[in-house]
Amino acid sequence: VATSFKEHDAAYFHSYSHVGIHEEMIKDRIRTEAYRDAIFSHADSIRDKVVVDVGCGTGILSIFCAYVGARKVYAVDASDIAVQAKEVVKANGLSDIITVMHGRVEEVQIDEEVDVIVSEWMGYMLLYESMLASVICARDRWLKRGGIMLPSHATLYMAPITNPDRYSESIDFWRSVYGIDMSAMLPLAKQCSFEEPCIESITAENVLSWPIVVKHIDCSRVTIRELETVSADFMISSMMMASLHGFALWFDVAFGTPIIDAQSESSMESTIVKDFGCNGINHRRHGNSSNQIILSTAPEEPPTHWAQTILYIYEPIEVTQDQIISGSISLSQSRENPRFLNIHLEYASGDRYFVKESVMR
Amino acid sequence: VATSFKEHDAAYFHSYSHVGIHEEMIKDRIRTEAYRDAIFSHADSIRDKVVVDVGCGTGILSIFCAYVGARKVYAVDASDIAVQAKEVVKANGLSDIITVMHGRVEEVQIDEEVDVIVSEWMGYMLLYESMLASVICARDRWLKRGGIMLPSHATLYMAPITNPDRYSESIDFWRSVYGIDMSAMLPLAKQCSFEEPCIESITAENVLSWPIVVKHIDCSRVTIRELETVSADFMISSMMMASLHGFALWFDVAFGTPIIDAQSESSMESTIVKDFGCNGINHRRHGNSSNQIILSTAPEEPPTHWAQTILYIYEPIEVTQDQIISGSISLSQSRENPRFLNIHLEYASGDRYFVKESVMR
Repeated sequence: VATSFKEHDAAYFHSYSHVGIHEEMIKDRIRTEAYRDAIFSHADSIRDKVVVDVGCGTGILSIFCAYVGARKVYAVDASDIAVQAKEVVKANGLSDIITVMHGRVEEVQIDEEVDVIVSEWMGYMLLYESMLASVICARDRWLKRGGIMLPSHATLYMAPITNPDRYSESIDFWRSVYGIDMSAMLPLAKQCSFEEPCIESITAENVLSWPIVVKHIDCSRVTIRELETVSADFMISSMMMASLHGFALWFDVAFGTPIIDAQSESSMESTIVKDFGCNGINHRRHGNSSNQIILSTAPEEPPTHWAQTILYIYEPIEVTQDQIISGSISLSQSRENPRFLNIHLEYASGDRYFVKESVMR
Repeated sequence: VATSFKEHDAAYFHSYSHVGIHEEMIKDRIRTEAYRDAIFSHADSIRDKVVVDVGCGTGILSIFCAYVGARKVYAVDASDIAVQAKEVVKANGLSDIITVMHGRVEEVQIDEEVDVIVSEWMGYMLLYESMLASVICARDRWLKRGGIMLPSHATLYMAPITNPDRYSESIDFWRSVYGIDMSAMLPLAKQCSFEEPCIESITAENVLSWPIVVKHIDCSRVTIRELETVSADFMISSMMMASLHGFALWFDVAFGTPIIDAQSESSMESTIVKDFGCNGINHRRHGNSSNQIILSTAPEEPPTHWAQTILYIYEPIEVTQDQIISGSISLSQSRENPRFLNIHLEYASGDRYFVKESVMR
């Protein structure tokens, strides 16, 4: 007896292309466990409270919040993954606590103030395709005075790097291809390999100096306006003799004490610094008194799905130890497409000065 | 004294996205060395002859032909990479021999008959985005009677496979995510992971039987018409007990004796079976008398950039040793978009029968 059916029913699934993204994010243990530990360590502030999860995806962060006793979690996602999140919540018997809302944070209705906003909103290079604007919107619409933002702070860093292996593999390769001189390919190869920012994992060995802070964000206070253009000047001393091949950008986020109206909520301070220590990974904590959980995407930390974002330059610059590399970086929302990020990099070292414009699409 | 220039000049480069593709192809040593060895082994048939290189890319195959003494090589490519190929040819002092033509084979003018057509035209699963139609066009426009096609033959194979690691990683993963039951994601995860053909490398251990031949192509005789739909029935006996997870497709091409009018060109037979043996890789040769060079993308061979093309099925079928798996496969050009390939797979084993339709976009 044969059974028969058609496996192909694409019309039913609008969003299947998203599953791979969610799989990648959830499988990024550094990311997911940092959030889990942060939520668990803030259990005293979440228990019996109201939470909004901005861009909930499969609902995993909302479920962590329910596990530590949230009274109510509004899990909001504009993409069709919300349909799955609702099923996941139901299968885990949490439909009474977690309300999945399929829509944009800017448009859905929540008829109460909330105590906590949790969101994994960070994009490549922190700001590329980030959901921070939606988090800000949620904060301004619903967060109580003294409410908690998870994460509470985010910092974007930049440092000059050397990456001879990568340069050689994509560029020098053309100098002799099976004995054939293909140097004619070099200008195009450089354009192709290095015009746009590259998402790649490097290690501490590639980094030529301590990073500069391009932008520090206090999630409780940041405005959409101040994110339109983010810029920083830099003057860096190379720690070694090397070929400067470009600049790496990365970020970290901290799950710390709420800064907003902290003075009026001082009792909170003592409750959120605990760490349940429920996982095998010891998240780096700031050396300061707050002892907070940090999710870092730095080259010296274990790699994450964000890797680092590298702005390669077209001609390596040979720098000596202590040689100064100076310049400026500016990231601004494209007018052509608000999703795009325009990157304006100026850099100088020795007697050489360059400008590199690129667009992260 | 500062020097200054803008590195960004995208308007000058139309085709930079192509460089990565050419880099990948050239760095595929199995591919490039097979072509080099095939050209070198046919040196006696190329020396003082006229060659067309269909889809020349960076021009590397044309240069190999020039090295073995071609009198003239027409290197044709419709993409902007032809501009680079011209520069490469010039830099190698071969402009007298190699004429790079920037245009479609269907449109460029070559005012003589040619002796040899060389082309690396194979796409994923042999036929996806392949340039075979252009090769046929070049053959019909310019190739002399008794002329040589390199490659001369191509064969598309298929076999049932098991791939428990892959299945577990993308599908079973959702059954417990940090202790959360996310089985609700399973239908979507299957749709997402397995709806479209996957380009992945498997090994001989994944393969459940000898392959069937889906299509054998004699490049000297094949017509565009017969490529519109390629289909085959199969009845395969599993060599082991395993979970059937899908079907893998791969191909090989042979650089052999020209079949076309071979009887009138019998002197050629002795000249093209030599192998200069100039590389470290021993290309598999057929066990027959022709001793020809084969470029194979089979799972048991070293991996190439083509990998294998896998049609995963949504529900594994447990098969026992010697269990029959039967069905049919049909690949046809999409009417929606001639670049797309519609894949119609029917398969049955035990008392189960399925149809899987997919589109390779």
